[in-house]
Amino acid sequence: MAIVMHDLAGADPAVRFSPYCWRIRLALAHKGLALETIPWRFTDKAALAFSGQGRVPVIRDGDAVVFDSWSIAEYLEDTYPDRPGLFGGMAGRAHARFVNAWADGVMLGGIARLIVRDLLDVVAPQDQAYFRESREARFGMTLEAVQEGRETRVADFRTSLVPARLVLGKQPWLGGDAPSYADYIIFGNLQWARCTSGFELLAADDPVAAWRERMLDLYGGLARKAAIGWRGAD
Amino acid sequence: MAIVMHDLAGADPAVRFSPYCWRIRLALAHKGLALETIPWRFTDKAALAFSGQGRVPVIRDGDAVVFDSWSIAEYLEDTYPDRPGLFGGMAGRAHARFVNAWADGVMLGGIARLIVRDLLDVVAPQDQAYFRESREARFGMTLEAVQEGRETRVADFRTSLVPARLVLGKQPWLGGDAPSYADYIIFGNLQWARCTSGFELLAADDPVAAWRERMLDLYGGLARKAAIGWRGAD
Repeated sequence: MAIVMHDLAGADPAVRFSPYCWRIRLALAHKGLALETIPWRFTDKAALAFSGQGRVPVIRDGDAVVFDSWSIAEYLEDTYPDRPGLFGGMAGRAHARFVNAWADGVMLGGIARLIVRDLLDVVAPQDQAYFRESREARFGMTLEAVQEGRETRVADFRTSLVPARLVLGKQPWLGGDAPSYADYIIFGNLQWARCTSGFELLAADDPVAAWRERMLDLYGGLARKAAIGWRGAD
Repeated sequence: MAIVMHDLAGADPAVRFSPYCWRIRLALAHKGLALETIPWRFTDKAALAFSGQGRVPVIRDGDAVVFDSWSIAEYLEDTYPDRPGLFGGMAGRAHARFVNAWADGVMLGGIARLIVRDLLDVVAPQDQAYFRESREARFGMTLEAVQEGRETRVADFRTSLVPARLVLGKQPWLGGDAPSYADYIIFGNLQWARCTSGFELLAADDPVAAWRERMLDLYGGLARKAAIGWRGAD
């Protein structure tokens, strides 16, 4: 029986753009576990009531219900220990938590400041007022003002990727010789932007960009084949 | 036979303040390996000629010579696999490299901007001109100008520690249930400041500060007993 995941979708239900859901989608592919997704919109809180909270990803695996991407990754690792490991042991898991914290606490906000207005054009019509209001409250300004000047500010964002850049200059994957959950964490953030905005986050000669290409190729091009919301908006 | 390490020392040879050397000192304690240190000053490049480069830490372990803190940590892990592990396996090592890159590429510069003028009062007299010139060239301004306004700017530094703070809010060590090399990396940076400056980097209620206390207690208070250069300067 496939694991079922509520997955953030756009106006086009094929467009799936949550960075957290992408982490889990790749983690499931890593473990070779079948996935069935249910498109979900920000305002459809009722659909997640069974999980006791209102954000995705949420998975159902038989009788088990798990939410929060980090908790889901731990659940998958602990429930399917005979499948390829996401963390490479307990210290690997502990250290991956630092990558997760950096991705959530630094990188995600950096990307949002470059593409948040573009996101508005991708989210479902019923989500647009919610999206604008909640994000404008968070940033204390309009989405247009947040995104303004990104052509200049992207340089600071690229600088902020120095930890990933230093690592990927030394080894092919954040997980070392093979991808680990650390790769899915950081790639999920980039895939969020790729599916929702035509704005290029990375310089062409950045080792992070070369790694992104390798990530797009994984699992039969799973992430490369993803529906792109902003092209559809033309 | 003890491992011998060239260790950055101040005007007072008992004051050892290199963040990179502290990482290795704790890694050796973790593995239960005996250490003998040779005090070294920035301008004593000749003393390191045997290693083919001019920075510390450098270790001699029998016939082996290894420099660069990350390379030394890998050497210790690979050479003494039966001793307690620093990384918890290859994925743990790969993920720790991200912590190392963040500590080097983000955190260290953040601390330098708060204490670099204080450092000048701790370095050996023969190092002072070198230290001022090389650091002023790096920052493009005087040491005094770099450090100015730190009472206000420390808030930004504290914010920048969000990845460590998020992790240490969830688990007692960066390594999980027990310290790993990831802990020694980040603690080494804080110990650099502790040994050279009276300026407090952390808020008292920060989980990072509570963890720093635990780090200071490790291995019989190895780091807590360290000589403090700035008190001696009074």
